Amino acid sequence: MGPARGTGKEVTAECLCIGDELLIGQTLDTNSAWMGQELGLSGIRPVLTRIVGDDKEVILEALRTARADIVLMTGGLGPTKDDITKRTLCEFFGTRLVRNAEAEACVISLFTKMGRKAHEVKPADLAQAMLPESCTMLPNKLGTASGMWFERDGRVYVSMPGVPYEMMGIMQNSVLPRLRDLFHPPTIVHRTLQTTGMGETLLAERLEEWENNLAMEGIHLAYLPSPGLVKLRVSTYAGADPTEAVARVDRQVALLYGLIPELIYGEGRQQLEEVIGGQLKELGQTLALAESCTGGYLSHLITSIPGSSAYYIGGVVSYANAVKMEELGIASDMLELNGAVSRPVAERMAEGVRKALKSDWAIATTGVAGPDGGTAEMPVGTVWIAVAGPNGVTSSKGVFMGTRDLVIRRSAIAALNMLRKELIPVRATAAE
Amino acid sequence: MGPARGTGKEVTAECLCIGDELLIGQTLDTNSAWMGQELGLSGIRPVLTRIVGDDKEVILEALRTARADIVLMTGGLGPTKDDITKRTLCEFFGTRLVRNAEAEACVISLFTKMGRKAHEVKPADLAQAMLPESCTMLPNKLGTASGMWFERDGRVYVSMPGVPYEMMGIMQNSVLPRLRDLFHPPTIVHRTLQTTGMGETLLAERLEEWENNLAMEGIHLAYLPSPGLVKLRVSTYAGADPTEAVARVDRQVALLYGLIPELIYGEGRQQLEEVIGGQLKELGQTLALAESCTGGYLSHLITSIPGSSAYYIGGVVSYANAVKMEELGIASDMLELNGAVSRPVAERMAEGVRKALKSDWAIATTGVAGPDGGTAEMPVGTVWIAVAGPNGVTSSKGVFMGTRDLVIRRSAIAALNMLRKELIPVRATAAE
Repeated sequence: MGPARGTGKEVTAECLCIGDELLIGQTLDTNSAWMGQELGLSGIRPVLTRIVGDDKEVILEALRTARADIVLMTGGLGPTKDDITKRTLCEFFGTRLVRNAEAEACVISLFTKMGRKAHEVKPADLAQAMLPESCTMLPNKLGTASGMWFERDGRVYVSMPGVPYEMMGIMQNSVLPRLRDLFHPPTIVHRTLQTTGMGETLLAERLEEWENNLAMEGIHLAYLPSPGLVKLRVSTYAGADPTEAVARVDRQVALLYGLIPELIYGEGRQQLEEVIGGQLKELGQTLALAESCTGGYLSHLITSIPGSSAYYIGGVVSYANAVKMEELGIASDMLELNGAVSRPVAERMAEGVRKALKSDWAIATTGVAGPDGGTAEMPVGTVWIAVAGPNGVTSSKGVFMGTRDLVIRRSAIAALNMLRKELIPVRATAAE
Repeated sequence: MGPARGTGKEVTAECLCIGDELLIGQTLDTNSAWMGQELGLSGIRPVLTRIVGDDKEVILEALRTARADIVLMTGGLGPTKDDITKRTLCEFFGTRLVRNAEAEACVISLFTKMGRKAHEVKPADLAQAMLPESCTMLPNKLGTASGMWFERDGRVYVSMPGVPYEMMGIMQNSVLPRLRDLFHPPTIVHRTLQTTGMGETLLAERLEEWENNLAMEGIHLAYLPSPGLVKLRVSTYAGADPTEAVARVDRQVALLYGLIPELIYGEGRQQLEEVIGGQLKELGQTLALAESCTGGYLSHLITSIPGSSAYYIGGVVSYANAVKMEELGIASDMLELNGAVSRPVAERMAEGVRKALKSDWAIATTGVAGPDGGTAEMPVGTVWIAVAGPNGVTSSKGVFMGTRDLVIRRSAIAALNMLRKELIPVRATAAE
């Protein structure tokens, strides 16, 4: 009784991640998120992830209550005492551990590559080649724990090591191709739009009418917020004709561009600092920064992009007023008259660093990041941002919510977005 | 029927994380790992984590099959259509959504803090104050979604927003104190030592002998590695006499200080940048930075500490060589002769920024963050770090592994650690 083949039905999967270290938060499980992405791109829907400890009864219970077509297990395959996944699998499938010649060859080849002689391979390492008799062995080129593939009652069970790159190798080389061959899952078509400048609530209000029509089109919308940003994912299942599904998603995305042209800054995994960098490169122009309240974070974002040295000249973090005066040429009476957190100071900072570092563009930030230093007129989170460029200087004030860290992050994103609007004219249609 | 109080039995908890974006891997669930750590420190054992989609039937099934004493839920509390946790909770507990005056006051106060008038708060935001009638509301100071506490059949269910810092605030302010009051879990005594300068494997080798004796003492050691750092948590269960357990842990920690005095920089949640800041404040001295390859990240770390303006004057991000020359006074022939990534340039950068910004101390970084720009003699990850101070300048070279992001993080930590060693003489005994 193998699994149903190519029935056109939705194919589902669940992850079972095994390890005490995951439950107590000693190690962060990144495997299930990665598997979720890969499954989705293969048209398989992830429906559940369970994280359990190295406990036989709990693992057996999880296996018995699995409902998805595919169960992907990670972890518990090491040579130490607390790794019990293999013995538990033998109990569940009513089989026993036997020496697997192919697995043994893999282990020995791994060690000889590391410069050890075959006869020097330790018994603990060779024990890694003992596998359940009823499984199909999936080779692991990067470690001693092989992958294992089981089929029973129309369901596939796969057990893989918990080390992320070993699991990824087995998934890509063996598991995903086998799953596609076996289940012929439908294709999922999706596009993700990156937005900034409006919170999730207001954005949902603005998109309500459009969103209401999506179900009729068989299209799903997801809001994915993070501080200062909201990602919008538009997706659908493709039928026999993927071109039709792509066209259907593209049509809705084009409508979305028309509704919120000024909020969309990119697609896919693109980041704001990447979009700005790309545009500066295209224009052959350069950027400098003068940061007070963002304290270097803006510069960190810009330089996190590989190749940013092509357009980023550098910056000044003017935390003390003396630095604002000496490095950015701000007069002491301007600071006294307006205070450091003010429009004139932000504008002079931007102009000052643009002149000193001879850049085409400059951004400046000055504000109250908190938690202390706020007043009734100028609460914590008040930030002045200025952008200086070939056509002069513009500035605006924001009041950003949250902890010190969030005020810094949100004002940095707002600052990048101000520069983006100066650099890239808003279009009301999707980029082709 | 409230939960069992102070029975001395082990108290267990499970996490139920809700959100399609988690399953498909668009967002990484970090909440359950954090909650697992916090539960462990409160003497509560995490036994299961489930990640499910925004699907009423699946959430209900997860609630019905919960077996632990405590069920901690995160996610699905946003104002958009795909957030269905509250309605599902109403169905599970046989209750209905009603306006919660306390929650409404929280929402309005949040918006007035941002400068909006009370009557301008939108219906979608006020809808966030509709809560299940039978729950106890747990205030959220950082967002519009309140926490909710339910008790039934001896089990506690808590629902919190999925935004990590909002969840953390509710856990620390409300959930953990309430759980401790209700269940009286056994007391765990622990101390966490922060180390830097040696990787986990080498550290474990160096501590092997000491570690082998811990079990006899009823003490557990956990290694908690993150890029550039390893936390060591020394913990034990306290019996009737907590003083005895504290003394037992303190004794082992004192031995640990003796074994790796130069690697330990702090305790608890202390960060390297905090330790340095505290020391600079105590000495009444100041710091300036000249960053090339760390690109502002070092400055961001320093300014992430509240009150850092007391000792941090500012910095220069000298990405382009022109900035190194003009702002830091580095001669062009020095750059040509040695290259920008070299000991003399790093030292001159540190001295240059110390002089320009008139600080007591200065750190400089220059290196190849990658992914491009490496050569056979100078591979990606090569970084020169210099520290200038009242007694002159010291410098050292590191070769840091990993992606661009990791090279930046690891070199920033190494740079902070160099300054720490200059500021704080190594002691072979624990701070009292």
